[in-house]
Amino acid sequence: MLKQDPALDRVFHALSDPSRRSIVDRLSGGSASVSDLAKPLPMSLPAVLQHLQVLEDSGLIRTEKVGRVRTCRIEVAALQPAERWIQERRAGWERRLDRLGDYLADR
Amino acid sequence: MLKQDPALDRVFHALSDPSRRSIVDRLSGGSASVSDLAKPLPMSLPAVLQHLQVLEDSGLIRTEKVGRVRTCRIEVAALQPAERWIQERRAGWERRLDRLGDYLADR
Repeated sequence: MLKQDPALDRVFHALSDPSRRSIVDRLSGGSASVSDLAKPLPMSLPAVLQHLQVLEDSGLIRTEKVGRVRTCRIEVAALQPAERWIQERRAGWERRLDRLGDYLADR
Repeated sequence: MLKQDPALDRVFHALSDPSRRSIVDRLSGGSASVSDLAKPLPMSLPAVLQHLQVLEDSGLIRTEKVGRVRTCRIEVAALQPAERWIQERRAGWERRLDRLGDYLADR
């Protein structure tokens, strides 16, 4: 049985690209308009919009349009399942090492 | 300037697939042979081998062949940059919320 978790698929996929990580990094310091986000990125505006779409689909960001300006903000809660997933695997592996240490100490 | 980190790209990409996460999960409980890893997965052996290749390329697992058996083990250290990346963005956002709280309290 394979445990399906499409939300986790989407978050890890969103974070696998340096431009998208750069956008998340920027937004972790505060909301920004699409044009401000696009400025430092070495790509066309349509390419930036595609990245923003992937981020929005993953739940990592929200965007809102007021007048002619679309503002993006981070949804930090969407990072938590990914962080927890990694932590739990690391913890599982460390517990295993501890048990192995106990076993070797008892010999 | 876009911060490039191809190792981080590969780790997040590796974790974006449920079969690969299932393999990492299994290996966090101890090393396993390729055939043991393949058994619970609803796919052909070549498909499993492709997933293992992606995981090995990302540094998340190592494989070693002894006689006719290829054994896989987790390289938990490769998870740490990904975990740290997420934690730092969450922390950055929380610091920002704290500053905002201070600002509102001072008004």
